[in-house]
Amino acid sequence: MSITLHLASMVIQQAREKAEEIKIPVNIVVLDTAGYLKSFIRMDDAFLGSIDIAIQKAKTSMLFRANSETVGEFLKPEAAAYGLENTNGGLVAFPGGRPIMNGNAIIGYIGVSGGAVPQDSMIAYAGSFIK
Amino acid sequence: MSITLHLASMVIQQAREKAEEIKIPVNIVVLDTAGYLKSFIRMDDAFLGSIDIAIQKAKTSMLFRANSETVGEFLKPEAAAYGLENTNGGLVAFPGGRPIMNGNAIIGYIGVSGGAVPQDSMIAYAGSFIK
Amino acid sequence: MSITLHLASMVIQQAREKAEEIKIPVNIVVLDTAGYLKSFIRMDDAFLGSIDIAIQKAKTSMLFRANSETVGEFLKPEAAAYGLENTNGGLVAFPGGRPIMNGNAIIGYIGVSGGAVPQDSMIAYAGSFIK
Amino acid sequence: MSITLHLASMVIQQAREKAEEIKIPVNIVVLDTAGYLKSFIRMDDAFLGSIDIAIQKAKTSMLFRANSETVGEFLKPEAAAYGLENTNGGLVAFPGGRPIMNGNAIIGYIGVSGGAVPQDSMIAYAGSFIK
Repeated sequence: MSITLHLASMVIQQAREKAEEIKIPVNIVVLDTAGYLKSFIRMDDAFLGSIDIAIQKAKTSMLFRANSETVGEFLKPEAAAYGLENTNGGLVAFPGGRPIMNGNAIIGYIGVSGGAVPQDSMIAYAGSFIK
Repeated sequence: MSITLHLASMVIQQAREKAEEIKIPVNIVVLDTAGYLKSFIRMDDAFLGSIDIAIQKAKTSMLFRANSETVGEFLKPEAAAYGLENTNGGLVAFPGGRPIMNGNAIIGYIGVSGGAVPQDSMIAYAGSFIK
Repeated sequence: MSITLHLASMVIQQAREKAEEIKIPVNIVVLDTAGYLKSFIRMDDAFLGSIDIAIQKAKTSMLFRANSETVGEFLKPEAAAYGLENTNGGLVAFPGGRPIMNGNAIIGYIGVSGGAVPQDSMIAYAGSFIK
Repeated sequence: MSITLHLASMVIQQAREKAEEIKIPVNIVVLDTAGYLKSFIRMDDAFLGSIDIAIQKAKTSMLFRANSETVGEFLKPEAAAYGLENTNGGLVAFPGGRPIMNGNAIIGYIGVSGGAVPQDSMIAYAGSFIK
């Protein structure tokens, strides 16, 4: 549960700059490695419905230590993992949730929602490495 | 639901400086006037159990446009408002939740938890006025 | 609701040895015949998201006294059992949940999650017979 | 989130021996430092209603890094912390939840329920130190 507020603030800032660059207002959340809220911002005009999506993408990423879309592979109909998406209070498994890497170590998870899927994904990526 | 991220960030910063001054790690949340999450930080070493308390204090404040402890007056046993505390998903009505004032206008709500009650209250107060 | 802690511990141990043999860290749960938790272990490095999956697989197995994947047959789209997966707080109906047999009698249910589906299934099988 | 299954099993064993010594069947749970289930046993004849109590005592202890009864001090009517007990999904704040200490470090949390309060407390204490 190691991410510091200092690093979490950097992560949020990196993601926010990307969102501003591509002019998409989003919700950005940082969870610690156990899934507890560490830092959050909702940019002006971001959808209210995306608050929960951002948090659940990050949580889904945390639960399986993988990008949210990687978890999504197991939710495809042909995977036949019936009911999997209803576990853990509901998985949200499309792009926008990622581990935050500090070198080779996962120190937390970022979740982004508010734009189109590739936009959310790009913004989450921008926040997912400690520079 | 008007608070901007710019102002919410100022509110968080003002409260955080007070928390650092009195050396109490807390959770600080800003909700908009409809109770939706706008900004949040968990300072390092703040209790995990205080994340939810901070959010619920701010939400309780929002629901009745009053400080959380003012709502608490109605929860005293002698008020006989049986079941009131179970409404709205659970009221949390002790000090640490407050309206954020911009002049005479309420623009959002702050919630703080992690220290003793007077400390949480002092930190929330520090964040509750736009300077 | 008859499984004893002595037998539940044997079941967990049998499954754990299989998991260690194939080097997959998993969550292993034993429920009694009414679905109440009897014994549980999370092996080191097992996914946090698999705690709930293991428990729900075992519970799904218990609810219909069948392997979890047998219940899954009723959740295939062509079964047209609309909403079935949302009953009972959410069914989890892919391999890894099984009755525990003592001779011909069901004495409890095992659930396993953390590996690929065939691995979970193999580990659950290893725990599902009292020797 | 550091407790190993090896240490968690020792904790369960220490607590179980105390429970057997005083002839009280209980539920015993070990959570990691983030509150996730690590290990659990229900002794034969322990109350079904005590499964959740044991887990919630340990979780309450985790949320505030304190014995469950210490959290209970803040729930006394004279503390006037209205609604506190409804936070975090419901606090359970009477004896039987404790940090597990490995030297000076908290490595997890134990929760015990099934006996009278002093019995639960004694059993939890027996499991709360790595020898």
